[in-house]
Amino acid sequence: MKRVDGRNSGQIRPVQMTTHYNKYAEGSVLIEIGDTRVICTATIEEKVPPFLRGAGKGWVTAEYAMLPRATGTRTVRESAKGKLGGRTMEIQRLIGRALRSVVDLEQLGERMLTLDCDVIQADGGTRTASITGAYVAMILALNKLVDQGMLEKIPVRDFIAATSVGMVDGMPVLDLCYTEDSAAEVDMNVVMTGSGRFVELQGTGEEATFSREDMNLLLDLATAGIEELIYLQKQVLGQEITSRIGQV
Amino acid sequence: MKRVDGRNSGQIRPVQMTTHYNKYAEGSVLIEIGDTRVICTATIEEKVPPFLRGAGKGWVTAEYAMLPRATGTRTVRESAKGKLGGRTMEIQRLIGRALRSVVDLEQLGERMLTLDCDVIQADGGTRTASITGAYVAMILALNKLVDQGMLEKIPVRDFIAATSVGMVDGMPVLDLCYTEDSAAEVDMNVVMTGSGRFVELQGTGEEATFSREDMNLLLDLATAGIEELIYLQKQVLGQEITSRIGQV
Amino acid sequence: MKRVDGRNSGQIRPVQMTTHYNKYAEGSVLIEIGDTRVICTATIEEKVPPFLRGAGKGWVTAEYAMLPRATGTRTVRESAKGKLGGRTMEIQRLIGRALRSVVDLEQLGERMLTLDCDVIQADGGTRTASITGAYVAMILALNKLVDQGMLEKIPVRDFIAATSVGMVDGMPVLDLCYTEDSAAEVDMNVVMTGSGRFVELQGTGEEATFSREDMNLLLDLATAGIEELIYLQKQVLGQEITSRIGQV
Amino acid sequence: MKRVDGRNSGQIRPVQMTTHYNKYAEGSVLIEIGDTRVICTATIEEKVPPFLRGAGKGWVTAEYAMLPRATGTRTVRESAKGKLGGRTMEIQRLIGRALRSVVDLEQLGERMLTLDCDVIQADGGTRTASITGAYVAMILALNKLVDQGMLEKIPVRDFIAATSVGMVDGMPVLDLCYTEDSAAEVDMNVVMTGSGRFVELQGTGEEATFSREDMNLLLDLATAGIEELIYLQKQVLGQEITSRIGQV
Amino acid sequence: MKRVDGRNSGQIRPVQMTTHYNKYAEGSVLIEIGDTRVICTATIEEKVPPFLRGAGKGWVTAEYAMLPRATGTRTVRESAKGKLGGRTMEIQRLIGRALRSVVDLEQLGERMLTLDCDVIQADGGTRTASITGAYVAMILALNKLVDQGMLEKIPVRDFIAATSVGMVDGMPVLDLCYTEDSAAEVDMNVVMTGSGRFVELQGTGEEATFSREDMNLLLDLATAGIEELIYLQKQVLGQEITSRIGQV
Amino acid sequence: MKRVDGRNSGQIRPVQMTTHYNKYAEGSVLIEIGDTRVICTATIEEKVPPFLRGAGKGWVTAEYAMLPRATGTRTVRESAKGKLGGRTMEIQRLIGRALRSVVDLEQLGERMLTLDCDVIQADGGTRTASITGAYVAMILALNKLVDQGMLEKIPVRDFIAATSVGMVDGMPVLDLCYTEDSAAEVDMNVVMTGSGRFVELQGTGEEATFSREDMNLLLDLATAGIEELIYLQKQVLGQEITSRIGQV
Repeated sequence: MKRVDGRNSGQIRPVQMTTHYNKYAEGSVLIEIGDTRVICTATIEEKVPPFLRGAGKGWVTAEYAMLPRATGTRTVRESAKGKLGGRTMEIQRLIGRALRSVVDLEQLGERMLTLDCDVIQADGGTRTASITGAYVAMILALNKLVDQGMLEKIPVRDFIAATSVGMVDGMPVLDLCYTEDSAAEVDMNVVMTGSGRFVELQGTGEEATFSREDMNLLLDLATAGIEELIYLQKQVLGQEITSRIGQV
Repeated sequence: MKRVDGRNSGQIRPVQMTTHYNKYAEGSVLIEIGDTRVICTATIEEKVPPFLRGAGKGWVTAEYAMLPRATGTRTVRESAKGKLGGRTMEIQRLIGRALRSVVDLEQLGERMLTLDCDVIQADGGTRTASITGAYVAMILALNKLVDQGMLEKIPVRDFIAATSVGMVDGMPVLDLCYTEDSAAEVDMNVVMTGSGRFVELQGTGEEATFSREDMNLLLDLATAGIEELIYLQKQVLGQEITSRIGQV
Repeated sequence: MKRVDGRNSGQIRPVQMTTHYNKYAEGSVLIEIGDTRVICTATIEEKVPPFLRGAGKGWVTAEYAMLPRATGTRTVRESAKGKLGGRTMEIQRLIGRALRSVVDLEQLGERMLTLDCDVIQADGGTRTASITGAYVAMILALNKLVDQGMLEKIPVRDFIAATSVGMVDGMPVLDLCYTEDSAAEVDMNVVMTGSGRFVELQGTGEEATFSREDMNLLLDLATAGIEELIYLQKQVLGQEITSRIGQV
Repeated sequence: MKRVDGRNSGQIRPVQMTTHYNKYAEGSVLIEIGDTRVICTATIEEKVPPFLRGAGKGWVTAEYAMLPRATGTRTVRESAKGKLGGRTMEIQRLIGRALRSVVDLEQLGERMLTLDCDVIQADGGTRTASITGAYVAMILALNKLVDQGMLEKIPVRDFIAATSVGMVDGMPVLDLCYTEDSAAEVDMNVVMTGSGRFVELQGTGEEATFSREDMNLLLDLATAGIEELIYLQKQVLGQEITSRIGQV
Repeated sequence: MKRVDGRNSGQIRPVQMTTHYNKYAEGSVLIEIGDTRVICTATIEEKVPPFLRGAGKGWVTAEYAMLPRATGTRTVRESAKGKLGGRTMEIQRLIGRALRSVVDLEQLGERMLTLDCDVIQADGGTRTASITGAYVAMILALNKLVDQGMLEKIPVRDFIAATSVGMVDGMPVLDLCYTEDSAAEVDMNVVMTGSGRFVELQGTGEEATFSREDMNLLLDLATAGIEELIYLQKQVLGQEITSRIGQV
Repeated sequence: MKRVDGRNSGQIRPVQMTTHYNKYAEGSVLIEIGDTRVICTATIEEKVPPFLRGAGKGWVTAEYAMLPRATGTRTVRESAKGKLGGRTMEIQRLIGRALRSVVDLEQLGERMLTLDCDVIQADGGTRTASITGAYVAMILALNKLVDQGMLEKIPVRDFIAATSVGMVDGMPVLDLCYTEDSAAEVDMNVVMTGSGRFVELQGTGEEATFSREDMNLLLDLATAGIEELIYLQKQVLGQEITSRIGQV
């Protein structure tokens, strides 16, 4: 039984990552997964948020947004509404938390890393594409600090990437496109490290429920998909930078 | 090895639910789990949100807030700040989603159920206590509609309750109090039905990661804890109302 | 001629004050006057607002809010609206002003006292119940500072309590419940000290007016009611704490 | 003992009212009381607020604001802050309530009267000057409706005006200027009708209290001052319009 | 062919400037151009905005607002809406930029000049009247600093004034009143100096376009009108102050 | 004398327009002028804003935003600030006005066209690039309506494009990059039609002034630059679509 776009249940869509997409950011990547496109930029500032002042360590945070026509019908801008919606807050908190899980904030020093993930076009999986892309942008920015002698090592313990899995028409599938996502009974976002450990796991049955067996099938798919994404991250970053990760 | 408050790893705190706590709400309960206290009220309105107008079905939504001194140090009111924080939005979206997973919205008809969860005192697990209490308030409100002949049956497919589990000092524990929550390497919120299926699963390693084996241990604890909570919900609701649930 | 709930014109509703209702706040009380219930907590912070920095004196302020189902029909949260309403602002300014009238701000030192009054259930007289309860929470918090040796004396000159009076169907009545309040031609809130002096007096004829004679009758009722409330405050605080008030 | 500007304790400052100050408003007046200057405009719209739709009666509301340099040091605009302050809300609610007390809303019909009181220069007593001036602007607007045959009579039962009284250095004084207001132990705003009845009475002891005897002295002063203001309103409105008031 | 109010195409409306209109502001003027009336006040504060701290120079900024009944139908207050509209922002940025073009910010020193332009009545040309009036208020405030010995010279290089020109029914006209402005095919606001140089030029064809020839005719009219306005500014300021301008 | 990037004074930067850049929008283009990159999308909705309901004509509006790292240092998001800045409002009002000047709103019918201009990378001239690109996106969207038979003709009277000119070190130059823009004494944005008429002209001397002669030199440069841009628009749109413009 084929999926709506002809893929197998365990197949991810074509992935492309264009690094140095932005000439100003300390690190940047345009990540494209199928028709989902996200610009991820990493900004490094020599300051920390108020709650960390004088604590001798840094911080990593993320912001997420969608252009009005990232979606099929025009979405009103949150700047025009005058406030961030719940979905946006939830996603940017997730991205920040995911990245912080592998960063050694003490080694980072009193610096603030901001990852901006701006969705140019949305076809499902924008939050997981954001995490996968933001990781690359972050590494590029930190590597620049190493090259400039401002850091000895890249203060990152492991790779991370993320993908979505879900039950669609009773079948567990990997990397849902928008059409599948809208029809899914269960939707699960998984963030994992290069060593196969979980960073974040969010499974939701919107107007539905799922068994522990379903969950196990979904996690198997997610694990395989994330391994593939981390393989691609390593290719894009190149051998030299890759070898600098996990040295802390 | 004992926990900070003397409990075993798989033991939940004392639970108390005072129904009809509020004289105006269609359904209400004060739920106390250890020192965590949440007032849950259910409001039924004969209208639906704009996106459901004319769709012939209802909606269930939730709002969550904490009093300023629910916490050890005073928290600034979100009304004074002029906006809801990301944590609040995330939690109230979770509560609403969890309740909707077992409600038959068509049978509910063009009605809107709002569950207000106001934390009077917070000692860990406020979002899961809110779900467990809001479920009871919702059932009481719907049962009143049945008694008034406005609904034939309670349009709810199953019980749901929620609890938190986590790894604290490398040990998996059930129903974390605030002290444990602050120290946990992994924090997982689980929402399950009376028939043992997942509704929502949110596992997070803040500045840490966890293995699939850890996850399985945590889910075993959560499953047992939720069974206990649903047993208590049934006792509080009484046999007659309990027998009206799952008839749709 | 009896009132809607059988009381005499000069009779206040049953009053109950549960002290130490909250385990975190420096002082707290749950005040219940009839079906009106308000949680009052006192927070002491070792800082002052910007306009008092370096002035060598402290400040007392108050915040007031209602839970959505404190009222017969659900009230939209001010945090969801993104701003405080005029009624809320007016009430919390009144509570703060009333308490400040008896506090010796110099003796308080560079400290900030915040009284949070959260209405759990509203059946008329929430602002005056808030003042009466907040006074007790404030004294409990200040007494703790005395016990801890951080203050020599409780820096409070006198007791204060508040009640409402009004003309209902041409009859002056004390302590209006919601039904009476809605029907009143004249509504007056009175704050008085233990020595019988006025702190605040707010008389309003909504779509009506009142004579000076009416006013005098209403003030007589209010004076008697407030004496009774202060008697109850003294009982709840106990003889030892009571004896520490008015020593400045 | 003379006051700071040489007046007697019971003397009001020079009052001037320039009617038809604005060419667009249905009614308008520039009221000057000493150095306090307020532009009051009355707008009549053939609609009512949502809560009165179909109720067959009208509404009267007020808005109050100060220009940035109405005050000695520049006040930040509330439009720039993005919200109305508590003082503004309190005052505009007071003005609206005061005017509504003498308007027959049924006779007004499904119309909305908005009184805008904009303080050009503030030297104490801006809220009471606003009420006194807004009354005149309102009458001019309603009289125009009568002239146009849209109303049979001016639907207003009585005159109203307002003034402030207070205890300054232990002496009761009428119509406080800013210097006196800042130093007053007790500050009372009184709104009265042409027949000597109270509409609103707000007495406040900021960091002080007052006796019932003080109150009576203050009310005597206020009564005399308001009589004088109403005499001036009648002069400004002229005999013909004056004779049309109180005919409902 | 006469204009709607009988003027010739190159004729400005009667102009009146009442200086020292406000007793608190460091400089103030009420400018009236036809039925357009704007109160302009200048505030001098001994501080600079954050982006200029320690830069050894000052800043000039402006704010613009309209009273609700400055217009034919009542305009909702921006303070009530909770935000400034685009038109307001555009205008106040224009006024600030125009004034800064002739101020020597280094000579001004670490001071902040705020020009508040509040439109009491609007009959077209409020932004250009604001610039013309704000210039006078600014000079009066700076001259006071010179008189007080806090500045050696008025740190202003030249006069500036502004007017509007436009094509109405195909005819170029000067100083449009509201009726003309509403009907104009092209609307141009011009700010010029006493020496005839442009400071700002904003030509707009709303749903229309204009030729370079049209533009030249309009600029000729504007140049003549601004010369006249600057002549009047000099008369109002008097010879002594006028002679102090342009000395930097 | 060469410019900072080696161009002649009258030379525009390389221009590239990638049409159909977004798969969801009715019309879209990625416009790149030098290192300035803007995504322009056109949305057509079958509705009109409230002020045009029932007027039998349509509306064209625009929104403008910058990604946080469009700029050299990170810019805080307006959605996070909770309000649009003055610069954003000014620019999006300009874009909308410019496009409306050539659209026949009656022929457009009761439709709303929204042009979103999102700056991915900013190197000067983002508002003029937005106008030039938004015009192309708008034509593509309208042409689709013609192809679908929903419109008979493209309801657009002429081409429009925009560029910036300015005085840099006393030399008039065309199409300023960011470095030049920061140093310019005079900055002018010009919007013109295909037939050489002005739509909008905004010349500003920030802390400087300019003569009429300067203005004429700048307008000559702008005219030539805009001709070039319109030539490129025609190439990108192709002969068939180009021939459909100006037929109304």
